[in-house]
This record gives sequence, C-alpha cells and structure tokens, in this order.
Amino acid sequence: MTASQEALAPSCPLPITKYPHVLMAHGGGGRLMNQLIDKVFISTFANPALSARHDSADLEAGGAHLAFTTDSYVVHPLFFPGGDIGRLAVHGTINDLAMSGARPLFLSAGFIIEEGLKMETLWRIVQSMAKAAREANVQIVTGDTKVVDRGKGDGVYINTAGVGVIEHQLNLAPQSVAPGDVVLLSGDIGRHGMAVMSEREGLTFETSIETDSAALADPVLRLLNAGVKIHCLRDLTRGGLASALNEIAETAHLDIAIDERAVPVLPEVMGACEIIGLDPLYVANEGRFIAFVPPEESERALEIMRGHSLGVGCTRIGTVGEHGRGIVTLKNLLGTTRILDLMSGEQLPRIC
Amino acid sequence: MTASQEALAPSCPLPITKYPHVLMAHGGGGRLMNQLIDKVFISTFANPALSARHDSADLEAGGAHLAFTTDSYVVHPLFFPGGDIGRLAVHGTINDLAMSGARPLFLSAGFIIEEGLKMETLWRIVQSMAKAAREANVQIVTGDTKVVDRGKGDGVYINTAGVGVIEHQLNLAPQSVAPGDVVLLSGDIGRHGMAVMSEREGLTFETSIETDSAALADPVLRLLNAGVKIHCLRDLTRGGLASALNEIAETAHLDIAIDERAVPVLPEVMGACEIIGLDPLYVANEGRFIAFVPPEESERALEIMRGHSLGVGCTRIGTVGEHGRGIVTLKNLLGTTRILDLMSGEQLPRIC
Repeated sequence: MTASQEALAPSCPLPITKYPHVLMAHGGGGRLMNQLIDKVFISTFANPALSARHDSADLEAGGAHLAFTTDSYVVHPLFFPGGDIGRLAVHGTINDLAMSGARPLFLSAGFIIEEGLKMETLWRIVQSMAKAAREANVQIVTGDTKVVDRGKGDGVYINTAGVGVIEHQLNLAPQSVAPGDVVLLSGDIGRHGMAVMSEREGLTFETSIETDSAALADPVLRLLNAGVKIHCLRDLTRGGLASALNEIAETAHLDIAIDERAVPVLPEVMGACEIIGLDPLYVANEGRFIAFVPPEESERALEIMRGHSLGVGCTRIGTVGEHGRGIVTLKNLLGTTRILDLMSGEQLPRIC
Repeated sequence: MTASQEALAPSCPLPITKYPHVLMAHGGGGRLMNQLIDKVFISTFANPALSARHDSADLEAGGAHLAFTTDSYVVHPLFFPGGDIGRLAVHGTINDLAMSGARPLFLSAGFIIEEGLKMETLWRIVQSMAKAAREANVQIVTGDTKVVDRGKGDGVYINTAGVGVIEHQLNLAPQSVAPGDVVLLSGDIGRHGMAVMSEREGLTFETSIETDSAALADPVLRLLNAGVKIHCLRDLTRGGLASALNEIAETAHLDIAIDERAVPVLPEVMGACEIIGLDPLYVANEGRFIAFVPPEESERALEIMRGHSLGVGCTRIGTVGEHGRGIVTLKNLLGTTRILDLMSGEQLPRIC
C-alpha cells in the first residue's frame, strides 16, 4: 500500500476490501448502487437538494423555482423495438423533471462518441432526439461533443440534463408520503427492459415487445392542474417497480403493501420474463410512474390518469401502512404475502 | 445500400461518402468538429439559444434570466500535474457559464464508469470535484451513475451541466464584437494541454508543467461588477487560442489581428511544444479566456484583470479590424504576418 492509499483508504466509507473495484451492479439500480450514491456521492457533495434524493433537484435561482436533473444513457443496443438511445435520452430526463411536478423547458445534450461510429447512425439518433423533444415541447439548447478512441466507448453515450419550472406549491417527496396513501401505477410494467433485452439477445417472441418509453410530464401536469394533492411521484427505471417502492418506503420510514394482482403485465412480457428468468417487478420501464395520493383523492386521480393516453392502464396497486420499518410487502397471485426487497445486485445491465 | 440508408443518406448534410464514420477529429475542436456541430446538431435541434453558439445558452425560465451549459470530460489520463478529471469537470462547466457573464450556482454530475475502476480512484475524483465546487461556491445538486462493461469505457467519463444566473444587461456574444475592440488574454497559454500530454506520454521536462485549470467566474464577475462594457468572452479549451479567435471572427464577420509577441507562453511550455511539434496557439487551456472590450475600456479592464490572481498575466494581444471576412491574422515574432487558421483536424485528442 502506497502512502497515498494509506492516507485515503480510511476515508472512503464503502467496504473497499470487499469491493475494491466498481462492478456492473454499482450501476444496476439495486443495493450496491444505492450504497455508492449515499456513501460516495451524497455524503461528499453534501447539500440539501442532493440529499433529498429526488429524481431532480428543487432549486431557487434568480427568483425562479426550478427543477434540475441529469441522466446519462448507455443503453445497448442503440436501437430497439419502439425506440432508440436518443428518444430515451429525451424522455428519461423529461420524466425526472416531471416527477418533481415541474414543467420541463430545456435540455442539454452531451455526446460521447466512439471513433468509428457510422455518421448515419449518429444522424438518425439526433433526428430521433429532436422529434422526441418537439413532441414533448422542450428545447435542446446547449450541447457538447467528445470523441473517444475505438474500444473506449460503445457507439455513443448520451447525457442529457434538464431544467424545468415548478409552478405548484406541493412538496412532492418520499418524506410527504403519509399512512393510508394510495399507490397508483400508471400502466403495465416491464416492456422497456424486455424490448431492449430481446433485441440484445436476438430473441424473437410471437408478439414483438415494444418499449414503453414516453414523456410523462403531460399526465403529471394534468393531475396537478386538476388540483390533486399528490404526495410523491416516482418514475420506474432501473430496478423497476420494486426498487422505486423500496426507495420510497425506506426514505418515508413507512411500510407499503402491494397487491401483485393489480399490477398489469402484458402476457408477452410475462412470457419473455419467464423464458429469461426475470421478475417483471424488477425490470426497467421508461414511460411508467407511481403516484402516492391521499385516499380521498385516489378515485379522482385514477379517473384523470385513465383519461390520458399514457395512463389508460392506470391501476390502484397498494396502500401505505400506518407505520413501519420501510418495508414493501407483496401479496402475490396466490394470495400469500412476502417481502419485496431491493435487488442486491442487478438484473439487466445497460438498459437505459 | 439498404432502403433505410437510401431514405436517410440524402438528409444528412455532411459529406457522408467522404467521412462515413466519426473520426477523433470530429471531437478535436477544429474544422470537422465545427461542421458536425453546425450541420448535425444545431440545424436539427434548431432553436435561437443553440444557434447563438455561446459557451452556454441564455434562457428565460420562471421569470429568471439563466445560463445553462453542459460538457463531458473524457480526459486521459484521469490524473495529471495540477489536476484531475473531477476538478476539470467542475472548472470547465463553471467557465462556460462564466463566459456568458453568469454567476454559476448549480452543477449536475453524470458518471459513466468502466467496470473494474478502482473504487479508491473514484473516491479521489469525487473528493476533488467536491473541493473544486466548494472553492468556486457552486453546489453539485443532482447526479447519475452508469456502469459500462470493461472495455467499453476508459476508467470514468464525467458529464457536468451547469445553471447560473445572469445579472448584467450586456449581450456577451460574438455578434456584439465591434471594429476597434481590443482583445485581452487573461494569462499564459498551453499549460493544460502540455500537462496532460506530458503525463500521458511519460515525458519529463526540467520543470514540470502544471495545468492552468481554474474557475474563471470570479475575474469575469469582477469586470462586470466594475461596469466594464465587455462585448464578448470566450474560454480557451479544445483547439486553444487560435480556434477561439477563429470562431469569433467568423461569427462576427470581422477580421482580428493578433500580435504573437504579446501572447505569453512559459518557456517550459514552449520547449515541450517544440519537442513534440505542437503550436501552443492550438493547445488546450482550462483556466484562460479572451475578452473583447471597447478600446476606451481596455486600460481599465487590463488593470482589473491584473489585480486578480487568475489574471496577473493578462495582456492586450490584438484588435478587431474595421471590416473583414472573418479572418484572424498573426504578426509573428519576426514581424511577418500570416493567417491563423482553424485546424482542419485535431492536435491533441482526449485533453478535456
């Protein structure tokens, strides 16, 4: 051990002897990723906006109330049924803003391109980003291009950061979740992950599975404009529904009880999951979210959601318990109840 | 050629038959990168903020006047004399905000980590980012972590986006540059590029060259607060002083005459450049900028700059001509004048 290692090793609060190197699982949406984020990033950068662990930071700048967020997209392959990395990079960041109840306005786009990428491929991706941005009424206003040597990338990685404006007075956060809250799920789960997976592995199913990738600001703003007193929103990305529920339960220090029978999964997604051996509750989505609403608001919220094309499949999947240890329980299809835990590692890498 | 290629090829305005693939030079700060940015990104995303080609976008959000920018950092190696990728990722994005005259407030941080990176290396980089952010009085408020497979990255790539607030009434832009303007350079050039290069190539010189990486918001705000009517600011990154001058001359449709004898270059940087065969005018910097100011303001601006630790070496390097074709001319050390052109390709890849 060198002098510099001796000086630094004690300060890194992760178990460096157990995990001396970064593993794929550190980016997989499960327990290892959460540890890395908490103990390395949040504790070091230490500020209230980051510690809130929202999908986007809630800020005051020049008298405006803003949301600010970032996401890098490293999905492999670059194109998959129903979408591509460009479309995903626009939707994903819009969705992080939307989960703060913000109206998304502006995106940045940072490209890390591997030398040798076909110019036409880049062109197609950029066209797709522009289309997705136009559809969602956001502007891509600033960008950056880097090229890395062949073998030091994977075609192209895209980072988008986003700025939106918060026009409501609610505190949409896990901390606002209250006993008795109803959990609404905006639609069927697991399509994005299985669409990417089937393309990557060259699997063909009877019915092709298309990604659910979509910009979710519109249905969220419709709920807010109708005055629904939402407590918390979370889009379902890496780690799927199970991880989103666990993160919120843990932060809110409340148990959440979910009824698996109420969670919509398309038969073809269920079939593909069974073949590959995955649980759809942990599979990534890019156009689905959960909303925690007070019980008296849940019927109205459900109605508004179902009136929107991105919420037609919205269901009431569970409720928040009176107190608890931050645990998520699942009543399964047979009626028995088990704990729905965070993954310790990762199920599907490079899905977003 | 497949049907889809036929349908798409005509719409991509780049010469795809000449350059069918992305080359390192497309990210090198020279002519090919400028073509890619203009013809693929700016023309497709088409909006006034992006078309202005500022270092950061000038925006209105929720009643606030903001600057928003992004940059990805892919520098190799991760650590070099006087700095590292984390410190660079904080300084670089702060500097893009500062070049709009904005007061930098918030940064995002997106990490793309290669599986197998030492956890301790990541820890050191994150500590360095936090320190740089604290020193510059900005907060890292939102982030993202992705892990890519071994051999699909290079240790770690970092994207930072930044939000700042614009509190002045000037239009700091190449379009504001006027005939007779004086060009000020904040200090000696070429240190960042040569520090990275010497570390990468294992070169040792008599005197070690340290990067000039620094956050430039402070000296810029000092000029603005003193009421100096700056016309345009530009930090010198990829492509160095020569590229920054060319981009501004071209956008302003004015010629710029530079006196090479007034451009400070440390002897050790000059020596290293001679050994490697590089022109310091094209070498990247990360803590230097040029300011275009009206002649009657130049003495006062120079004085203010020299009173700041990041501007002690500030010099007056040239003037803007009465009209012109957007050409930069250089009177060299021997007194003869030549055209200082954009590089056609790139000099130093992966320097920022």
